[in-house]
Amino acid sequence: MTNTVFFKNKPRIVATGTIAGPKDCAGVVGRFVDKALSDDTFGETTYEKAECKMLAYAIQQAMKNGGVREEDVDMLISGDLLNQIISASFAARDFDLPFLGVYGACSTMAESLALAATFIDSGHFKKIVAATGSHFSSAERQYRYPLELGCTRPPQAQWTVTGAGGVLVANDGGRVAITSATFGKVVDYGITDVNNMGAAMAPAAATTILTHLKDTGRDASYYDLIVTGDLGALGSRIVKDLVWEKGVDIQPNHVDCGEIIYKVIEDEFQGGSGAGCSAVVLGSYLMDKLKKRELNRILFAATGALLSTVSSGQGESIPCICHAVSIENV
Amino acid sequence: MTNTVFFKNKPRIVATGTIAGPKDCAGVVGRFVDKALSDDTFGETTYEKAECKMLAYAIQQAMKNGGVREEDVDMLISGDLLNQIISASFAARDFDLPFLGVYGACSTMAESLALAATFIDSGHFKKIVAATGSHFSSAERQYRYPLELGCTRPPQAQWTVTGAGGVLVANDGGRVAITSATFGKVVDYGITDVNNMGAAMAPAAATTILTHLKDTGRDASYYDLIVTGDLGALGSRIVKDLVWEKGVDIQPNHVDCGEIIYKVIEDEFQGGSGAGCSAVVLGSYLMDKLKKRELNRILFAATGALLSTVSSGQGESIPCICHAVSIENV
Repeated sequence: MTNTVFFKNKPRIVATGTIAGPKDCAGVVGRFVDKALSDDTFGETTYEKAECKMLAYAIQQAMKNGGVREEDVDMLISGDLLNQIISASFAARDFDLPFLGVYGACSTMAESLALAATFIDSGHFKKIVAATGSHFSSAERQYRYPLELGCTRPPQAQWTVTGAGGVLVANDGGRVAITSATFGKVVDYGITDVNNMGAAMAPAAATTILTHLKDTGRDASYYDLIVTGDLGALGSRIVKDLVWEKGVDIQPNHVDCGEIIYKVIEDEFQGGSGAGCSAVVLGSYLMDKLKKRELNRILFAATGALLSTVSSGQGESIPCICHAVSIENV
Repeated sequence: MTNTVFFKNKPRIVATGTIAGPKDCAGVVGRFVDKALSDDTFGETTYEKAECKMLAYAIQQAMKNGGVREEDVDMLISGDLLNQIISASFAARDFDLPFLGVYGACSTMAESLALAATFIDSGHFKKIVAATGSHFSSAERQYRYPLELGCTRPPQAQWTVTGAGGVLVANDGGRVAITSATFGKVVDYGITDVNNMGAAMAPAAATTILTHLKDTGRDASYYDLIVTGDLGALGSRIVKDLVWEKGVDIQPNHVDCGEIIYKVIEDEFQGGSGAGCSAVVLGSYLMDKLKKRELNRILFAATGALLSTVSSGQGESIPCICHAVSIENV
């Protein structure tokens, strides 16, 4: 079985494009995104259309920031949280690019990066854009309750990030490279509380992080940061405990995108979530630090909860997944 | 831009596993599937759980027919039609395999095969199972109306296939190889009738078939069969017209899985559809003919309609995609 792929050609992250909503830009990513929205409808009539437009913006901006024209790009790999990944599919309609639709819930940024890197490393492709995004209001409407109902949120809930990130991966350009990818397995510890995604996803994150460290023969301290996607504050505590039980200490260098994205985390309960969460944090804040060499080695491990309202309604627990890519200055 | 990838290592289709419902087995595939269900609930309490169980069966059976153990397989690539691809994600929970979730609607079999072949060809993976499926009753409930309403169907409608197919792709084993893959673009001709998928998807099929023939420098007659996924009778007429307008004649060797799967097509309006349609026809009927060398070269071009009930409700047209893989005896 192959869990971890080592890329001999070290595909490069040439550029990123990011956009985020007003609340999302109030925190750590606000200074680094390409576009900070003052209005989370982005001039559209529905939240779903706003989500799609943000995603298209992020894709376009990644190409622009990378200085490449659309006709020089080989493929778009994208997915999102909406039923039938309509944000990605409809955004793809705006581009004259071969399109690979993926679904990994909030792990989509890591999944599409792992896929893009494998494709580039195969030698068949030179430039691929991997992108994803999410919108608080479309996610609430689809997964939970329409905002108009004014439901209260339980303390273990997270807040879906309104934002999108696109990453241009290429066979050369710059020093920030994807050096390996660990493809995750579906892990289900039997959590059924759909408001507690952090607890559901933490075991998947722990499994993939441990697998990655084992496959690479690395100690957790090899990385400047081990970045999980959107476990939130509670899930982050759980993942640290789970790997600690296996003799691995990620406490000193673990950070969770959901835990850091908002200015005052208590206002958003456990912090951020959504496919856009890790995409925006990676594409703006982390990439800035990687490019400035303030960070040189990170493990980017985004997690996804693979439930639907139907599966939960039928009494199923929440299967989760975590894909990881190591991003290093080379 | 890279539309078509030529596989230097010619990844092999070692084995397939297929299962289909009672109506679906009454026609051409019935003699060739591994399991013909007499009860389309497959012993489960919901149609969604039945769909998931069929998919898990197809994955298991592909490995069994290929004589490989689960621990020798590197990855599972799967997706389906249900919101958040729950059939694939929950089926993946049954296997101790790295999992890549994809979404391409009814193009999923071709998308996952193209992906598996590219991964195998990269040299990083040796054995991958690509799988998808669908269920008439879960698809009706999600995309259209619950069966209990007893709605009449318009004449241009198709009938979602109850069935699943798994394909074991490997770096060696047998003579049936995936020699190239053409990754499709999103094509939208403005069709808004959600009951007329054939018309919506035909332009995507035509675009990908024409791109494939151009990129490979092949005449349509190179192939024994050019197989579309599930355009149905009406969509098949449209795709033949569309490529004819571009000077390409696929009339003599075109066949559509949706058009051939049912015994009496008129009973099912325009024929079969759903991700399971092309998966079952390829995995049973076509693979039998390929293995017996009654067919030596086919272009398998599965199409997908990338709409959701939300996008249609918001007045959007139907973006479609078609991915194609050439499967040849080598």
